[in-house]
Amino acid sequence: MTDFDSITDQLAEQAIEVPSWAYGNSGTRFRVFTTPGTPRTVFEKLADAAQVNAYTGLAPKVALHYPWDKVDDWSEVVDFAAEVGVGLGTVNSNTFQDEDYKFGSLAHHDPAVRQKAIDHHLECIEIMDKIGSRDLKIWLADGTNYPGQGDIRRRQDWLADSLAKIYAHIGPEQRLVLEYKFFEPSFYHTDVPDWGTSYTQVAALGERAVVCLDTGHHAPGTNIEFIVAQLLRLGKLGSFDFNSRFYADDDLIVGAADPFQLFRILWEVRRGGGFEKSTGVAFMLDQCHNIEDKIPGQIRSVLNVQEMTARALMVDADALEAAQLAGDVLGANEILMDAFYTDVRPQLAQWRASRGFPADPMNAFADSGYLARIAEERVGGTQAGWGA
Amino acid sequence: MTDFDSITDQLAEQAIEVPSWAYGNSGTRFRVFTTPGTPRTVFEKLADAAQVNAYTGLAPKVALHYPWDKVDDWSEVVDFAAEVGVGLGTVNSNTFQDEDYKFGSLAHHDPAVRQKAIDHHLECIEIMDKIGSRDLKIWLADGTNYPGQGDIRRRQDWLADSLAKIYAHIGPEQRLVLEYKFFEPSFYHTDVPDWGTSYTQVAALGERAVVCLDTGHHAPGTNIEFIVAQLLRLGKLGSFDFNSRFYADDDLIVGAADPFQLFRILWEVRRGGGFEKSTGVAFMLDQCHNIEDKIPGQIRSVLNVQEMTARALMVDADALEAAQLAGDVLGANEILMDAFYTDVRPQLAQWRASRGFPADPMNAFADSGYLARIAEERVGGTQAGWGA
Amino acid sequence: MTDFDSITDQLAEQAIEVPSWAYGNSGTRFRVFTTPGTPRTVFEKLADAAQVNAYTGLAPKVALHYPWDKVDDWSEVVDFAAEVGVGLGTVNSNTFQDEDYKFGSLAHHDPAVRQKAIDHHLECIEIMDKIGSRDLKIWLADGTNYPGQGDIRRRQDWLADSLAKIYAHIGPEQRLVLEYKFFEPSFYHTDVPDWGTSYTQVAALGERAVVCLDTGHHAPGTNIEFIVAQLLRLGKLGSFDFNSRFYADDDLIVGAADPFQLFRILWEVRRGGGFEKSTGVAFMLDQCHNIEDKIPGQIRSVLNVQEMTARALMVDADALEAAQLAGDVLGANEILMDAFYTDVRPQLAQWRASRGFPADPMNAFADSGYLARIAEERVGGTQAGWGA
Amino acid sequence: MTDFDSITDQLAEQAIEVPSWAYGNSGTRFRVFTTPGTPRTVFEKLADAAQVNAYTGLAPKVALHYPWDKVDDWSEVVDFAAEVGVGLGTVNSNTFQDEDYKFGSLAHHDPAVRQKAIDHHLECIEIMDKIGSRDLKIWLADGTNYPGQGDIRRRQDWLADSLAKIYAHIGPEQRLVLEYKFFEPSFYHTDVPDWGTSYTQVAALGERAVVCLDTGHHAPGTNIEFIVAQLLRLGKLGSFDFNSRFYADDDLIVGAADPFQLFRILWEVRRGGGFEKSTGVAFMLDQCHNIEDKIPGQIRSVLNVQEMTARALMVDADALEAAQLAGDVLGANEILMDAFYTDVRPQLAQWRASRGFPADPMNAFADSGYLARIAEERVGGTQAGWGA
Repeated sequence: MTDFDSITDQLAEQAIEVPSWAYGNSGTRFRVFTTPGTPRTVFEKLADAAQVNAYTGLAPKVALHYPWDKVDDWSEVVDFAAEVGVGLGTVNSNTFQDEDYKFGSLAHHDPAVRQKAIDHHLECIEIMDKIGSRDLKIWLADGTNYPGQGDIRRRQDWLADSLAKIYAHIGPEQRLVLEYKFFEPSFYHTDVPDWGTSYTQVAALGERAVVCLDTGHHAPGTNIEFIVAQLLRLGKLGSFDFNSRFYADDDLIVGAADPFQLFRILWEVRRGGGFEKSTGVAFMLDQCHNIEDKIPGQIRSVLNVQEMTARALMVDADALEAAQLAGDVLGANEILMDAFYTDVRPQLAQWRASRGFPADPMNAFADSGYLARIAEERVGGTQAGWGA
Repeated sequence: MTDFDSITDQLAEQAIEVPSWAYGNSGTRFRVFTTPGTPRTVFEKLADAAQVNAYTGLAPKVALHYPWDKVDDWSEVVDFAAEVGVGLGTVNSNTFQDEDYKFGSLAHHDPAVRQKAIDHHLECIEIMDKIGSRDLKIWLADGTNYPGQGDIRRRQDWLADSLAKIYAHIGPEQRLVLEYKFFEPSFYHTDVPDWGTSYTQVAALGERAVVCLDTGHHAPGTNIEFIVAQLLRLGKLGSFDFNSRFYADDDLIVGAADPFQLFRILWEVRRGGGFEKSTGVAFMLDQCHNIEDKIPGQIRSVLNVQEMTARALMVDADALEAAQLAGDVLGANEILMDAFYTDVRPQLAQWRASRGFPADPMNAFADSGYLARIAEERVGGTQAGWGA
Repeated sequence: MTDFDSITDQLAEQAIEVPSWAYGNSGTRFRVFTTPGTPRTVFEKLADAAQVNAYTGLAPKVALHYPWDKVDDWSEVVDFAAEVGVGLGTVNSNTFQDEDYKFGSLAHHDPAVRQKAIDHHLECIEIMDKIGSRDLKIWLADGTNYPGQGDIRRRQDWLADSLAKIYAHIGPEQRLVLEYKFFEPSFYHTDVPDWGTSYTQVAALGERAVVCLDTGHHAPGTNIEFIVAQLLRLGKLGSFDFNSRFYADDDLIVGAADPFQLFRILWEVRRGGGFEKSTGVAFMLDQCHNIEDKIPGQIRSVLNVQEMTARALMVDADALEAAQLAGDVLGANEILMDAFYTDVRPQLAQWRASRGFPADPMNAFADSGYLARIAEERVGGTQAGWGA
Repeated sequence: MTDFDSITDQLAEQAIEVPSWAYGNSGTRFRVFTTPGTPRTVFEKLADAAQVNAYTGLAPKVALHYPWDKVDDWSEVVDFAAEVGVGLGTVNSNTFQDEDYKFGSLAHHDPAVRQKAIDHHLECIEIMDKIGSRDLKIWLADGTNYPGQGDIRRRQDWLADSLAKIYAHIGPEQRLVLEYKFFEPSFYHTDVPDWGTSYTQVAALGERAVVCLDTGHHAPGTNIEFIVAQLLRLGKLGSFDFNSRFYADDDLIVGAADPFQLFRILWEVRRGGGFEKSTGVAFMLDQCHNIEDKIPGQIRSVLNVQEMTARALMVDADALEAAQLAGDVLGANEILMDAFYTDVRPQLAQWRASRGFPADPMNAFADSGYLARIAEERVGGTQAGWGA
């Protein structure tokens, strides 16, 4: 197995984008439980996100959701972010919370609604220009609930047309990232349900259009690491939305439901060169902390990715290849499992400390009293959530 | 195949309980879309539900959700229901929308929260006594999101204890009906995830405790009609919550996603004697009309159940048994399919008309102008939804 | 709804390819049950397949599996087929039953095994040339059972390379059709698991390479009609392997498990122009009659496709489009359901009779005594199955 | 976390029954690949199984399958087992490989077939008496492939009747263990599809009838550890059939597909007292080594169970309970994960060596040359498989 010391350079480069909305409230259709101290503004979200980076060094950038994070003056946001020590990352559009979008947005049957959704994305690009963001991430709630409700075929053409109009405005250093999702909130058909659809749509656009793989957006049993390998091979893996799931799009903490799956995914990232800067793969979280504390939930998440990345980097790739070529099923499997079963936590703790970070970020943050402080300070106003 | 004329007596007895909450707004965690004219009070919900019965004769009773349908004086509700021509049915408890229930209710680790949830159910029983309701339906959101979060084993004991305390107050003519659900809103474990758990819990309580089978609450691929057959055999099928699904608990219109499954379910109901009054099986809808009109959505639903019941009643049971005993796989299957493929709609239309109902209830309701009227009249106030 | 009379021209053109192997024995890993009269040779298979066509007029062509259907002299097969009144269709390769293929074939890590598998396909093309077959269908059992066992990424490249070598031999009027399958017989990863992989592989080959969609080869809950619509849109839907499933790749009679799904699939075929000859879509069965009689099982299957095609053709497409564009969810759904619920069987029976076919092909075949005859005649020898 | 040293007494008691059939060939419906040296007799199977125990000390007993392991004189088997150092465990009946069982066995519609299947089980009990076996394990392939084919309800009654007749012969120190399975080889309905059915059937029999939980026999997404907790609570968890799966009943090496799930299962075993001898829970493997070497596959399997048991035993149960009662979601989860992420392999290796076993059983066995020896010696005859 590869020595821990020889992977620290790669670990030092790891950066995981955190979503501004993870610091606000979220829940299920049954109930959104609240937490004292929940941010009321994008500034408070950034302040919270900055904590994650301060304690781990893993989360230098924050992804925004628009219009959830709408402000009058974006330069204030840029300045504030710099002040608290984080950068601004991906801009996520939102075309699912306006009454006009009841039957879709970029794939809507009404050209006026499609235009409205296109315009929203152009607005997002303007913001990207202002804040220096590279990626426009598009997740669509478009779809139908009942067979016959929509024209599946034509909606795909409308979608292609809408995307082309947005892509025309994507800058030379920017990217359009198209996410796919198996189902929800649509319950019969989804206009971008799988990687194949996202791939064929972005391939039709051009080089700066890529796919976003959300680890919770697949059918039961789907081999996600295969898709990772395939998209890297096709040069179209734009970004990850990390989270975990037992059933549907549960949006639990990444690695919580199936740590071995996360390991296999990160192994295929390594195998396909996805950790190399040149591939441009963005590693992001997209989670809901419905019942657990939000900032610790985020710290736990980036640590999970870090720990599993360490294991993936420690796989003895040469020995693995030799066993694979020898048809040694059990031997090859054991080489992979050896890295997975290795407890990297003590070495990571030491290494973190050596770089000036707390050995145990979870405890260090808990001891900081930050949660109590914001609970006390942030009184009044409206807590941020998915609706605002 | 059995003649349509010989099943009309059974059809005439069919009664499908409709849920008061189906007339209010509902949606997903992403968005609750509204509709003009949505009820603001339980009275307006009852008025809307009465339309379904008026046009179909199929929905004489309305199930209530407490405290969503809370009023000061229940006699007013009873009177109003009688006035608009419907009765009051099952009372559904709600222990998932209070901050105290963040980690559960009847299975919560804190005895104070369990007691609060028990008290809520006793309050429901008091209301049942006032309005003459037979069934207390308990669906629990109890569960956990992360492995280790809760003590699965002990929670089961706590649940048993809480249920026993509630059951002690169930009147001699009343029933406690325990629903099970595979997942959501809990994403790791659910305290009543399957029929086996619901069955063993109610079996421990006594004769007046039975199981509610919600057709959307199973793992992918589950043979639901088998469970129907089994629960009828065990004498514990208390009620149905009808709806349909493609993926998770989509809560679509019953029969919309897989009409053949609905047929097979109703066939096993017939096979197991579940249409006979003596078995006490309650047939209810539990659906969300997120994007379609609510009253027509309910009319469509009860018609779907009626149409499929007609098909199930028309199966030539004697021929089927003969083919089964002869090991004639294709022959037996064809006998069942023959009834399923029979278009019962024209005969049902005629029969409806003969009883003084519109032949085409969907069109008749649309022509009535009711939706436009309530959209105009119900201005101001807060539309009812899952939160109120 | 479209009148039955106006769709008979299209129905008259319908042709469903039947698989030679459906007439031999098949089963599960637990047991292959036998049937008296099962064919021992490809000639007896063709004789049985000819019965299906004789009674329905729906199955003019028989697909072959090589080497299961291996003979010394292919001209004898061509002559015999003509004699019994059927043509020869798709040639299906087989690279999963030789010890060399234990770890794969076209994606195997050993170049010698890959070459052997490539050569097998070139042999298939030679046979196609001899028998006038258009399509080479490739279904691969390639994959791995354990994480780490194989190099997912490199295997994809090996596969691409192998396919290119085969494609180079595909004649100008021939096609390479690549099937995908979610899992089985591989249980960790499959080298062609989804339509996206099959599509990107055949797109890299050229115009005469297309995708085969087997209706049983998807993850639970997959919206198959969406894939149909997408592949038709991309011009890459080469063929269907029809069957049905409740759980995995059950290979039951098409339409048996979810007739409404079959309807939705055929509706999208119509919507995307897939019934037009110019699209070249091949409609095939790929089923296992493990416990039911094989020839009646096949007759039932082609009738199911015919009946559901009739329903799909009768959808009032104009009214549907109008309802869709009006955002009339329930109205659009009802238009689709109207066609599905229409009992087309009486009209089809009449139409069949008018064309000289039995009104009830199942009964007519049963009455013919054919099964008893072959049970008596085909004594001795080895019954054909998947292994021979 | 609990110290390793304090769990070694419990580890020393661990015993995992291995299945005789795992040493024979197995495969899929597509192909059974063979391995040189595969046993041809039950004696050779026992010799191979004894290797697993010799190298690990974990597998003192071998489960038999009847009639696969049929012999004329059972005393020879008992003597041979003792000689090679293993005992004989559970007897598994087989009512799925005779032509008579095409439509079922204990739930068959024909009383003659049911009686034949009952008699087979009585024969198994006679063998149990001869070889001193405690458990009769019944897994049924009974079910149907097509809706209507069988009478689901009546088959359940027939099954109950058949089981009662078998149970009447179960000795006072013996147990009837009823396995359930979601699907396969039946593809529409299974007569014992879930734990609820198995539970209600054995509960009706009496105290010496219990449930077998095969980890591969559930619907996608099922929370298996919940069932473990529930069956232990109900006093009806008789035994485990360990294996792992990504999709269906893949029968892969236990722990290979989802090691975290195995950990959670074993944690609930500990939580529910299932490791205590008094509960009588039998831990067995039931796997197929389709492509990997069989004996090493079995060694890997018992080691996986041992390693994961060690982790489950090391969970700090007191700290976990405290965190649970405090509603500390992330804290409780972390306590559980801490044990899971601990690499117990070095300590286990040392402990093994201290007890006279090889520190690395996989390597030690590989070095022994046993596989080469049996490949050389076992020439001629028919290799054992599922069919013989």
